Amino acid sequence: MNFTMVAYIIGWILQIEAAFMLLPTIVGFCYGETEHAAVYIITALVSFALGLVIKLKKPKTRDLYTREGFATVAIGWIAMSAVGAVPFTATGDIPNYIDALFESVSGFTTTGGSILPNVETLSHANLFWRSFSHWIGGMGVFVFIMAIFPIMGGYSINLMRAESTGPAVGKLVPRVQKTAKILYAIYLGLTVIGCIVFMICGMSFFDAATTIFGTVGTGGYGIKADSITSYSASVQWAITIFMILSGINYSVYFCLLRRQFKDAFSISEVKWYLGIILVSTAIITWNIHGFYSSVGESARHAAFQVSSIITTTGFSTADFDLWPSLSKTILVILMFCGACSGSTGGGMKISRWLIMGKTIFKELSTMVHPRQVKKIHMDGHVVEHETVRATNVYLASYFFIMLLSLLLISIDNFDFTTNFTGVVAMLNNIGPGLGLVGPTGNFAGFSSFSKIVLIFDMLAGRLELFPMLIILKPACWKKY
Amino acid sequence: MNFTMVAYIIGWILQIEAAFMLLPTIVGFCYGETEHAAVYIITALVSFALGLVIKLKKPKTRDLYTREGFATVAIGWIAMSAVGAVPFTATGDIPNYIDALFESVSGFTTTGGSILPNVETLSHANLFWRSFSHWIGGMGVFVFIMAIFPIMGGYSINLMRAESTGPAVGKLVPRVQKTAKILYAIYLGLTVIGCIVFMICGMSFFDAATTIFGTVGTGGYGIKADSITSYSASVQWAITIFMILSGINYSVYFCLLRRQFKDAFSISEVKWYLGIILVSTAIITWNIHGFYSSVGESARHAAFQVSSIITTTGFSTADFDLWPSLSKTILVILMFCGACSGSTGGGMKISRWLIMGKTIFKELSTMVHPRQVKKIHMDGHVVEHETVRATNVYLASYFFIMLLSLLLISIDNFDFTTNFTGVVAMLNNIGPGLGLVGPTGNFAGFSSFSKIVLIFDMLAGRLELFPMLIILKPACWKKY
Repeated sequence: MNFTMVAYIIGWILQIEAAFMLLPTIVGFCYGETEHAAVYIITALVSFALGLVIKLKKPKTRDLYTREGFATVAIGWIAMSAVGAVPFTATGDIPNYIDALFESVSGFTTTGGSILPNVETLSHANLFWRSFSHWIGGMGVFVFIMAIFPIMGGYSINLMRAESTGPAVGKLVPRVQKTAKILYAIYLGLTVIGCIVFMICGMSFFDAATTIFGTVGTGGYGIKADSITSYSASVQWAITIFMILSGINYSVYFCLLRRQFKDAFSISEVKWYLGIILVSTAIITWNIHGFYSSVGESARHAAFQVSSIITTTGFSTADFDLWPSLSKTILVILMFCGACSGSTGGGMKISRWLIMGKTIFKELSTMVHPRQVKKIHMDGHVVEHETVRATNVYLASYFFIMLLSLLLISIDNFDFTTNFTGVVAMLNNIGPGLGLVGPTGNFAGFSSFSKIVLIFDMLAGRLELFPMLIILKPACWKKY
Repeated sequence: MNFTMVAYIIGWILQIEAAFMLLPTIVGFCYGETEHAAVYIITALVSFALGLVIKLKKPKTRDLYTREGFATVAIGWIAMSAVGAVPFTATGDIPNYIDALFESVSGFTTTGGSILPNVETLSHANLFWRSFSHWIGGMGVFVFIMAIFPIMGGYSINLMRAESTGPAVGKLVPRVQKTAKILYAIYLGLTVIGCIVFMICGMSFFDAATTIFGTVGTGGYGIKADSITSYSASVQWAITIFMILSGINYSVYFCLLRRQFKDAFSISEVKWYLGIILVSTAIITWNIHGFYSSVGESARHAAFQVSSIITTTGFSTADFDLWPSLSKTILVILMFCGACSGSTGGGMKISRWLIMGKTIFKELSTMVHPRQVKKIHMDGHVVEHETVRATNVYLASYFFIMLLSLLLISIDNFDFTTNFTGVVAMLNNIGPGLGLVGPTGNFAGFSSFSKIVLIFDMLAGRLELFPMLIILKPACWKKY
């Protein structure tokens, strides 16, 4: 392990986070929350200084192989979350640091599951930071650094691979830094447009800004206790649309910007994604029509919840835990589904499901025609054996982590539905589950031990398992 | 598809089943249930005649490639279950044929989940047939035919592969027929010894015989409404031991018979299997000690339930749905675990988990040492790439079938725990789940549609997915 280089990058992360913390400081001052603003500015200064100290020793070589790339990203996210949790505790809004860490990890990983029974008691500064952490974590802080500062040399692809979503991380353009810049430009564009649209629909600037952070980052922290329920129908529809847009593979926007319309609309993952949203919404609309006064209203709630879960955002406009079993089961299955690769969404990603589905068909074909040599294709390209293998290993690891987490948190003695959907909601970075952790519930009841397990799950889910697994392997820490 | 050969083998299956039906006929006569005995003898005669008719056209070639082997086994099991269900309806004990089919499939697949609220209302003939179907299905009817009649020529390995359990089906000796003979001899030996042991522990002959069928076949149909609860502690311990013995890879017994003791005790899957049983029992014993009057009693119930679930038998001595969440979760995880490959147990099999675990370690190692070429080893042998791939495809198919089944049965609007553990219990051929399908519940409440879905799951689970999937593929039915 190239420890100096890893430390150097972590130093950068802390300094960038310090810069980001100036925003909640400003919000605090604007709303007259001087004490809270002070907490943020002090945390920012300390974090910046810490970063400086860590960066003092310049790395002799900038080599950053796969394992270091993955380990750096995992350590960077842990460090960022640990620092991000400090203001919650220091302001007294979340006195217990483990709770604050849960809240911070849930923010950066864009999970959006909270330990707070009522978020409305938080200061504006804290509410802003909570939501803004979704925005930072959504596209990724390493990708952000790459976009702005070309510090990592030629090895930055290993960091990008570890932080970006989906089974095969592609570069949009040959240079990693350029790709990072394009991704952040699209991300920023979506954010600004969304914020304006939300304000046109009647939201205040503060509400629109915090909500769009949770939307484009597919996070799901709201600033109201009832999430999005009390907003108008037009706001709810607007959020639905921006959630769907945020779950789409960003290559689509890149192609659109380049006027490659045919390429943009031919990605099979995106077609499946939109198809699944449409079909699920239709079934749930029909299934819950008795609960609401009009078909329009049930369609709105169905579309909102479906988009919220499949993109792993986690906002809610209705307590879907009260819906019929079929609707609830569709939502649970969508939890496993996830959004498109190359989006800010979490979960297993539709492309992984497509690859798995294709391997099953290939296996059955091979049984029928044993002499046929078949390759798996997607969008006209052969899917590399490496990608298929990584997908399979991902699924196996996912299964192991899920069952082990389920076992560990069951010590708290909650019911099976709560435990199971809780783990699934954390591992897929969704937020709410069913039962006690349903849309009206929260994760406060779990013990500190369970919260640490769930914190691991959120980080593992956001970084797509391997970065968090590799730092558990002692061989990864050997010096060379 | 070599249709004549497939039909020819199905004809054999029906005739063998007819022969097996003479046993419940005898039981019926012994207990003065003349009408029921008559139903069994008539069904047997009709089944035999049907077999004769189907077999009239002799196959020109005995070729039986992979797809035909797999499809034949799937069709054979469906035919066998369909015929096996007839007496339940004809005797009037289970008036609805879908219910009877569920019961019959649950018997042959050694699932042991019932639609009957109270089995004690059944006649002795029906009770015997129910339990005996576990025995037939446990080792497999195709393996039985292979052991007795060498009708399938050199291609019988394809049938054996489809019907036997585990990721890589090995032959114990070079000839398939000899292997089948050895397996059935061990199976019969365990049955006879178990029956004698149960009788020594105080069971009547009828009780001992039916219970040992459910034990060595890892089925789980009891003849009492409370399963094994009302039997003495010594009977419960005896059943525990025979369940554990039935979940062990039969290669162990083969090695023991050949006095290859070192080989017998070096199979890592078996070590893991016994280790998991031991650790799970210990944790549950501690977790439930407040529920029972002594540690011995909680150890007995813990060991019984752990062995019953991991071997996918499904007997119960306690309503574990009332146990603490940790104990219940351990049992749910054991449902996914399954017994050893090459045993009569169902589920995913421990060897598959070992292969998956090793692939994860290999992937992480490759990240740390990218230039290292590593192969997966088990018990000193390299695990073939084919086996790893089949395991991965198995896991993906398993996940798909599980989620789809969960979706389909949720239309009945039962709670999530019931639906989820119900599907898991059917797909892994266990029997009871939690909630409404817990040890004191049953599957009667589900609609006919859901029962058909669960019937598919039971067959898919017993035949390890691919045979049931391949018959859904139209290309499999093409003539050549």
